[in-house]
Amino acid sequence: MAVNTNRHFGKGSSEPSFSNDGKLRLFSMRFCPFAHRVHLVLNAKNVPYNVAYINLSEKPEWYSEVNTTGKVPALQLVNEPNQPFLVESMVIAEYLDEKYPEVKLYPEDPFDKAQTKIWIERFNPIAGAFYRLVYEQNPDDVNAQLLNTFYSELGNYEAELVKRGTKYFAGAKPGIFDYAIWPWFERFGILSSVVGEKYNFDDRFPTLAKWLHATREDLAVQKHLLSTYTHTQFSLGRRAGTPHYDLLVEES
Amino acid sequence: MAVNTNRHFGKGSSEPSFSNDGKLRLFSMRFCPFAHRVHLVLNAKNVPYNVAYINLSEKPEWYSEVNTTGKVPALQLVNEPNQPFLVESMVIAEYLDEKYPEVKLYPEDPFDKAQTKIWIERFNPIAGAFYRLVYEQNPDDVNAQLLNTFYSELGNYEAELVKRGTKYFAGAKPGIFDYAIWPWFERFGILSSVVGEKYNFDDRFPTLAKWLHATREDLAVQKHLLSTYTHTQFSLGRRAGTPHYDLLVEES
Repeated sequence: MAVNTNRHFGKGSSEPSFSNDGKLRLFSMRFCPFAHRVHLVLNAKNVPYNVAYINLSEKPEWYSEVNTTGKVPALQLVNEPNQPFLVESMVIAEYLDEKYPEVKLYPEDPFDKAQTKIWIERFNPIAGAFYRLVYEQNPDDVNAQLLNTFYSELGNYEAELVKRGTKYFAGAKPGIFDYAIWPWFERFGILSSVVGEKYNFDDRFPTLAKWLHATREDLAVQKHLLSTYTHTQFSLGRRAGTPHYDLLVEES
Repeated sequence: MAVNTNRHFGKGSSEPSFSNDGKLRLFSMRFCPFAHRVHLVLNAKNVPYNVAYINLSEKPEWYSEVNTTGKVPALQLVNEPNQPFLVESMVIAEYLDEKYPEVKLYPEDPFDKAQTKIWIERFNPIAGAFYRLVYEQNPDDVNAQLLNTFYSELGNYEAELVKRGTKYFAGAKPGIFDYAIWPWFERFGILSSVVGEKYNFDDRFPTLAKWLHATREDLAVQKHLLSTYTHTQFSLGRRAGTPHYDLLVEES
């Protein structure tokens, strides 16, 4: 099966036919926000890579043979001995930043770098609340509580961006802070289909809203961008227990 | 209340009376394995620091005022403007490694460094299974399953150390790989009081057992070491809902 298409390798598929071009190989899933981070980092650094998308509900048999963790995102380093795999989105991101330093995404200063990592780590409860709002059948009061967490934690990012007074969290250009949290912002519009009018992002977070519009135009982001409509379509299938991995292939 | 003692600051306590000696300030809890990591890193690097231990069940009022996350471990950087706090044990560890590079604990090579981080991350399920075995009232079949996870995941570390053929995971001397996982190994003996004879670490993991004995003698480890007896005493109190934070003060 061919690589570098939006089709996902599933159970019974043959191994991807990568060409021996020396490029990094990214194993990803087109709708996974964690994998999305790695696409953004590679794009921002202009590091060429081949990609194979994996159907996570029905994983190909060959995948756990080549990558024993079975996880995505996984980056295969084809130029290292034994062509090993790296996993964990932020481990991969920092590896790429050290290995391909022409475009630096992490701050150089150890303290600034540590603070950036803490802000990225601190985003987890937002991602968690968002996931539960979209994918779990919750009673109204649970949803109200999740939405509270979601808004109050996002408020910290709004305040931080106001305090920094910069266009992006990283400064005049997007950095790892921006790219690491972007995948969820790209998907937040899904909430309109879940919580309806209660979802009023732009009114609540005017500074984040400006950041969102600016970041959306970044070239690295543009190269992997999907519309709220597409993200919502995928989420509906997944919520129904039938994730439609090849949504983009069949649309085009 | 004085700092640098094994007494924990609790509700109603006055703020720690740190001297203005320019040393880093570590907010910790004497029995917390995550905080333990930071003590080990500071000790291994010979970075002088002051410590204030925090009672996590009844936190001092002043603590969340100075460190809004309320978390430990937290490292206060007294020489940075506004004396900010860093949180997250591994973020702090990497910050210290970059800021105090005389004794390097992380590998220099980006790939080796990424692999080390993945191994540290991969330890989480072991720490999780251990925690549940010690602190949750589980039916026998749940404990059997947790013990299975615990042993099979540890088997990967045994195999990795055999494969590396080095005294420590990091090589001839301990590095961040060793220090990041040590706190749990120091506590594993608690399991004898929980699962009894089924806990036969040394027979199952002969290479890890050798590593354990060697690492226990490391000076950075020795400086913060507690006995299995003491760890077990603390765990019994905590399991009963009355963690005995000042166990060491009252013993001495």
